[in-house]
Amino acid sequence: MKILKPYSERLRRLRRHMIKAGLSGLWVTRPENRRYLSGYTATDPQLNETSGSLFITRRSQYLLTDSRYDLQAAREAKAYTVVVYQDGLVNTLTRLARNHRISKLGFEGDHVTVTTYNEMLGSLKGIELLSATGLVESLRLIKDQPEIRKIVRALRITETALAETVNFMKPGLTEKEVAHYLEDRMVALGAEGAAFETIVASGSNAALPHAIPSNRRIKESETIIIDCGAKFQGYAADMTRTIFSGPPRRWMKEIYQLVRNAQLNALKNIKPGMTTVQADASARKIIEAGGYGPNFGHSLGHGVGLATHEAPSLSQIRPTELQEGMVVTIEPGIYIAGRGGVRLEEMVLLKKNGVRLLNQDRTFFDFSPV
Amino acid sequence: MKILKPYSERLRRLRRHMIKAGLSGLWVTRPENRRYLSGYTATDPQLNETSGSLFITRRSQYLLTDSRYDLQAAREAKAYTVVVYQDGLVNTLTRLARNHRISKLGFEGDHVTVTTYNEMLGSLKGIELLSATGLVESLRLIKDQPEIRKIVRALRITETALAETVNFMKPGLTEKEVAHYLEDRMVALGAEGAAFETIVASGSNAALPHAIPSNRRIKESETIIIDCGAKFQGYAADMTRTIFSGPPRRWMKEIYQLVRNAQLNALKNIKPGMTTVQADASARKIIEAGGYGPNFGHSLGHGVGLATHEAPSLSQIRPTELQEGMVVTIEPGIYIAGRGGVRLEEMVLLKKNGVRLLNQDRTFFDFSPV
Repeated sequence: MKILKPYSERLRRLRRHMIKAGLSGLWVTRPENRRYLSGYTATDPQLNETSGSLFITRRSQYLLTDSRYDLQAAREAKAYTVVVYQDGLVNTLTRLARNHRISKLGFEGDHVTVTTYNEMLGSLKGIELLSATGLVESLRLIKDQPEIRKIVRALRITETALAETVNFMKPGLTEKEVAHYLEDRMVALGAEGAAFETIVASGSNAALPHAIPSNRRIKESETIIIDCGAKFQGYAADMTRTIFSGPPRRWMKEIYQLVRNAQLNALKNIKPGMTTVQADASARKIIEAGGYGPNFGHSLGHGVGLATHEAPSLSQIRPTELQEGMVVTIEPGIYIAGRGGVRLEEMVLLKKNGVRLLNQDRTFFDFSPV
Repeated sequence: MKILKPYSERLRRLRRHMIKAGLSGLWVTRPENRRYLSGYTATDPQLNETSGSLFITRRSQYLLTDSRYDLQAAREAKAYTVVVYQDGLVNTLTRLARNHRISKLGFEGDHVTVTTYNEMLGSLKGIELLSATGLVESLRLIKDQPEIRKIVRALRITETALAETVNFMKPGLTEKEVAHYLEDRMVALGAEGAAFETIVASGSNAALPHAIPSNRRIKESETIIIDCGAKFQGYAADMTRTIFSGPPRRWMKEIYQLVRNAQLNALKNIKPGMTTVQADASARKIIEAGGYGPNFGHSLGHGVGLATHEAPSLSQIRPTELQEGMVVTIEPGIYIAGRGGVRLEEMVLLKKNGVRLLNQDRTFFDFSPV
């Protein structure tokens, strides 16, 4: 069977990692990893239901699913043998593992529940089970060209939709109405949908970094944080702008400028070879120097790809090295309980000597003292 | 602290179950269970990220979250003490468990990953860990009045949106356009959004029980399955209609009528005391008698509530007893690879002597021979 690009290359890289880890088989359950390795796009109906998983040996690959998905699986995952399970997932997995004489089976420990694991322990007796958490993710860290193209397409759609939404906005609209308009525009512009629940947070809600759009009506002279991202062919965009519904007050200008300065400093300094902790610090130190350190309660950014949030995390803990080909967000913020907040988020691709800004939109305010 | 209804009653019922299971503490990680017991509405940004979890002892209750969600948690989960973790979730959980001298801690085995469990084993030494899978779900099986009201509101919105969508539909539109119109109408009618990804499956796509709306244009004389549901205050609706884009062919009429007869037979016969397997059989035997048994490859139905799919499952395996107060779907289907399919789905509430149909819409075709 001829395996289509880019899956042949991804499977080749995966098998190199499997050999290094001594695994004769790997069971892939995380939906983004499944799609990355096979092209199978089905989503899981719920947290505790799967529309399929991959079983990969050193020479062959299977897609295990139930009868609801068999036709879609065969159509999409052309490099895989589709196996429809009749007597449950773990029994089917066990049969395949025994047929292929698997001695050491890797599984995704952060995407297998304790209940399933206990079932596996009972059924797969004699086969060593090894949590291979992060194995496929380590391939996904570095984006190939088709991936970068899709991410950029998702981001362009997001930028256009957001610009149209800002034009549409006015005091009196509810946060939900604004969020709905934005998501509508993303779809009209060719997105599969929103990559994550759009945040439109006005007034005191803007002090909640992960606010959900409410029925609160936007008033005059508030900060409004809009955090949104389209999904295009499975890939996410993620960007944030903060706008003002009328003339900004002094405190708003102050925190906006501080957040923007922190972001610009990060964009200027981040490059491969630096650690994620150093990257975070390049923005955080500006906010701390401005006296708002405690009001920046989240990390600076995160990787983006098939998942909206993926490795690496640009935070104050667990340093890892930034590498060429990673795509990450740079999103400092300042939040003042009861009053409001500012967050600005850009997406960048790590290049040899620095970053390439993926955003084209440049409509930032400039409150810097002349 | 005064605990607001209905949470006081739900916590009381939960503690009775905890005592029966010998648990001195329970860690609740599944989002629907968290909302059911606390009112906290945050959604988890991704499968491997949580916006919070509950730690419940026999006398007190805590909501553990990170700084992104602390204000929302305090506002919504008024009966809970909000604890923001600085040094990670498992460390915070360990500290609370030790302070409360927990000897036996229940956790949700089907909603805790192997990676987290291994971390717990290391940190919670000396405390017995017990998978209490299904404990909170067993409370959620039987719906109280506020829940039924919300489910019915979600279903009314769905029915109205679907009727408007059927009016709007015509050959030439893509499945995606139809799905988007429908979800748009649900939001305009007051839904929080779609409870799950709307299915609009036309022509050969209708042979895939879980098809995703594609860019395929609807042609004349096809079967089109529309499976959709609004979410209202956290509660889901779930209904399916099959329509025809022009005069139905003979095979379409035949399978439509068979599916409808199977559904009517189930609606007439299902009642408390019957098992879920018997309920499934009440529809399946009609389809089997018509010669299409192998084309009905999924179960008859499932519970609906805070989750679109929840217990009980009305399938051919694992019989459990139906009880008054359950809300389930009745959704037989016939799928013919390459040609099309029919599925019809209604929602019912189990009453003392049978079911109360929750759907009001009655626009079914009747192809029965006169």
